[in-house]
Amino acid sequence: MAKPKKAPRPKAETPKGFRDYFGAEVAERDAMLAKIAEVYRRYGFDALESSAVETLEALGKYLPDVDRPHAGVFAWQEDDEAWMALRYDLTAPLARVYAQHRNDLPTPYRRYAMGPVWRNEKPGPGRFRQFYQCDADTVGTASVAADAEICAMLADTLEAVGIPRGDYIVRINNRKVLNGVLEQLHLTDETQKADVLRTIDKYDKVGETGVRELLGKGRLDASGAYIDGVGLTEAQAAPIIAFLTSGKRHADMAAHGVQRMDGKRGEVYARHRTPELSEAINRNVLEELRRVVGGSAVGVEGVDELDQIADLLAAQGYGPDRIVIDPSVVRGLGYYTGPVFEAELTFEITDEKGRPRQFGSVAGGGRYDDLVKRFTGQEVPATGISIGVDRLLAALHAKGRTEAQAQGPVLITVMDRDRMADYQAMAAELRDRDIRAEVYLGNPKNFGNQLKYADRRACPLAIIEGSDENNRGVVLVKDLGLGKRLAAEIASNEEWKEQPAQQEVPRADLGDFVAAFLDRTAG
Amino acid sequence: MAKPKKAPRPKAETPKGFRDYFGAEVAERDAMLAKIAEVYRRYGFDALESSAVETLEALGKYLPDVDRPHAGVFAWQEDDEAWMALRYDLTAPLARVYAQHRNDLPTPYRRYAMGPVWRNEKPGPGRFRQFYQCDADTVGTASVAADAEICAMLADTLEAVGIPRGDYIVRINNRKVLNGVLEQLHLTDETQKADVLRTIDKYDKVGETGVRELLGKGRLDASGAYIDGVGLTEAQAAPIIAFLTSGKRHADMAAHGVQRMDGKRGEVYARHRTPELSEAINRNVLEELRRVVGGSAVGVEGVDELDQIADLLAAQGYGPDRIVIDPSVVRGLGYYTGPVFEAELTFEITDEKGRPRQFGSVAGGGRYDDLVKRFTGQEVPATGISIGVDRLLAALHAKGRTEAQAQGPVLITVMDRDRMADYQAMAAELRDRDIRAEVYLGNPKNFGNQLKYADRRACPLAIIEGSDENNRGVVLVKDLGLGKRLAAEIASNEEWKEQPAQQEVPRADLGDFVAAFLDRTAG
Repeated sequence: MAKPKKAPRPKAETPKGFRDYFGAEVAERDAMLAKIAEVYRRYGFDALESSAVETLEALGKYLPDVDRPHAGVFAWQEDDEAWMALRYDLTAPLARVYAQHRNDLPTPYRRYAMGPVWRNEKPGPGRFRQFYQCDADTVGTASVAADAEICAMLADTLEAVGIPRGDYIVRINNRKVLNGVLEQLHLTDETQKADVLRTIDKYDKVGETGVRELLGKGRLDASGAYIDGVGLTEAQAAPIIAFLTSGKRHADMAAHGVQRMDGKRGEVYARHRTPELSEAINRNVLEELRRVVGGSAVGVEGVDELDQIADLLAAQGYGPDRIVIDPSVVRGLGYYTGPVFEAELTFEITDEKGRPRQFGSVAGGGRYDDLVKRFTGQEVPATGISIGVDRLLAALHAKGRTEAQAQGPVLITVMDRDRMADYQAMAAELRDRDIRAEVYLGNPKNFGNQLKYADRRACPLAIIEGSDENNRGVVLVKDLGLGKRLAAEIASNEEWKEQPAQQEVPRADLGDFVAAFLDRTAG
Repeated sequence: MAKPKKAPRPKAETPKGFRDYFGAEVAERDAMLAKIAEVYRRYGFDALESSAVETLEALGKYLPDVDRPHAGVFAWQEDDEAWMALRYDLTAPLARVYAQHRNDLPTPYRRYAMGPVWRNEKPGPGRFRQFYQCDADTVGTASVAADAEICAMLADTLEAVGIPRGDYIVRINNRKVLNGVLEQLHLTDETQKADVLRTIDKYDKVGETGVRELLGKGRLDASGAYIDGVGLTEAQAAPIIAFLTSGKRHADMAAHGVQRMDGKRGEVYARHRTPELSEAINRNVLEELRRVVGGSAVGVEGVDELDQIADLLAAQGYGPDRIVIDPSVVRGLGYYTGPVFEAELTFEITDEKGRPRQFGSVAGGGRYDDLVKRFTGQEVPATGISIGVDRLLAALHAKGRTEAQAQGPVLITVMDRDRMADYQAMAAELRDRDIRAEVYLGNPKNFGNQLKYADRRACPLAIIEGSDENNRGVVLVKDLGLGKRLAAEIASNEEWKEQPAQQEVPRADLGDFVAAFLDRTAG
């Protein structure tokens, strides 16, 4: 083979904004995704894995950051001049897949997908350019029962992965309601409309005063930069603020109710609430929305849809302790046309500055009735949800709900490098019993290094067989976790003596001994 | 939100050379990868998932197709001028990860990785530009015990996913042996050496005559194109041919022995062989190799390594019926420095023209001691294997070894669209029992369409509750698989009558009835 030409050494660095996942991180995510897939499948959704690469035209331009080249995607030009790009979400590819294969797919088509997506954005702390999404969508039905189902499934999914009821809330709004409000304001400029929606979306971050300023002339943000406002008059802004804060108050009551009143958690509230009270909360929000949209036909349609969704969910026992109507939900993506959803984790974590704050959003979605139409020209209604996998994993970490660190392998140490075959045979024996085992393959000269390696790998046991042991037909089994376990249990000296860290076992009994030991310590 | 500007409709097409995976395809691959990961983990390997994107310089240029721009990768230039690319395999990224994190990783570092890789090659039938690999590598040890372990693990893996012993063979060679042979020929030109290796690699495809022509002046290939030869003299080519064919003969004997002699399968041979016979086969190959490399130091070193590997494997019971020394193995990638491996499936399939042929290679790998050095300047020996996931899946399909098609959900049909909430409650009841269930969400007007949908989804049961049933507190349960099952069992008319396809069940018993039914039919 031709030798590579002498070149300066490449940097051993993950590209900026990308990261690697090691051992337990991969296993934890796989375990979580498997649980999510199980719920999705139980609801009748089928798996789909589309290609990571799409033509740029198929992806379309729907990312919030519309001003950047290629709308924030990683793109390149093929030899035949065609532009290709990495998918930035799993929804745009679904629209392409459905349009392409619609004659072979069932209608409605319920599909789930999980995998990495890529965004060509400025990386920041905790902000990566490759991240996992886990989506479920129903394509080919305009029924709001599909939206309600997605929201119920989202609640079930969060509980399945380990977020207990009371620690999350699914919020629902409807773009049609928002459009109805805008219609009432007689806004005609599309850009201004979009700006108003973006501003409403910031309510959670900047609060009532912030939104009021951003709807008007503008606002000095925390970093000292001046953010231009949308330019509405006070009179125009007032109904938006009223709509946001009044509806929001009820939504908050549903999510955190008693927490706000007596300082306790939403769970307590949830336990004491009656179905009638729950019902009343969503009813109140709907009434207020109906008042705000006034005579706007699209607004009324939106409220009616939310009404049906609330009914369907209530009938299945998903009350406002889990799923609530919330007028401040917008969702950034441009393709939503009807109901929009967001799942928020309501428990507190401590931020980098030591202040308590709510964990926040881990999933979002909504109805997008025009996305497939781009390809086919025919209306194909669709709705779905996308879970931010990395954020949800971080939440499980924060709650201590991820599975315990996977155990390392049993380590067969190498005392005599000419007897590698014997050591390999030991490892094979253990593996035949489904025990994780390996022979030390580093330089065996320094035995201390072998034990250091075992420690780094979190090995439960080390097996030692030198020539003396070999002659006597025994092996030494060293319990590497004992010290840690004893410290944890604050055991007495007597117990320590009864459990020697190293034990001689007949070679023939090695498999039985190790299997019994691992069974015992696993319990 | 701003409306997208009117543009010509995008084509709903998977980009050329890419494909989508649906339902059972995704589930089958996941199941296979889970089995592979289990074997890898049992051998002590830990998961790693590196980013799909790397800097172009970190990836290096190791693809066989060195003449194409960017060496066959998908690459693009960032705003800061840096070139980024999609990984073309999982080995180059591992070298980068190890170099970057070596102080935090155990040494030796055993890792496995599974995921898509991308190659910017001309797509063809069955030749995709995105495909899955599943790798295991040991970094940081020069011990051939690591190579032997990888080969043993590869054999275990193939059996774990469902390729029975006798239907596969792991072939091992050593680049050092090949270099020794080249040294004996006094070739000095690196390009010519690489060309000779590439030609040896074609032995399986073009046979002895083909290799002889390609080593000499050239050859008219099947398509009528003239392929230029390496330009060796007859005298130079002769030892290569001798080496290839003599060693190859023994290797074939080990893999297919009796098959070639009496027309039966390798399995039969494997059953009748004695350990001594197995042993003798690898011994004979090693002796011939030793003769061919003559006085070449590197060649002798290579044969010695193969000798040790054969010993280690024999001691663990991996004889030449599973793992065999085979001088014709080269492996295309440029970074291999020592032992190289290949797993071949030896059973016959029927090709597109109806002719029987061996399935061929599903995995390859080897030792690459210089790959990490590119980054660190320090030698870091490493060895590993890569399984071609899609090819292995295709093999399992060919053998009928993939799991049965996943069952569709129980379908709750919609007789009365005002009672969606009741139907949803039925679905929720079934899901609570871990039963896959969904409410029909298409237009419910035409009941025939609902049953067509159920058929397309392979639903086992349809639940029907119209107003009459509702008034009487019952539901109809329609057994959708019965017709198919009866046809399969050639049941008599009497039995048909005893097993009506539709049954009335009290609404309160729905869950129990469906659960019992699915338990029964799953058996």
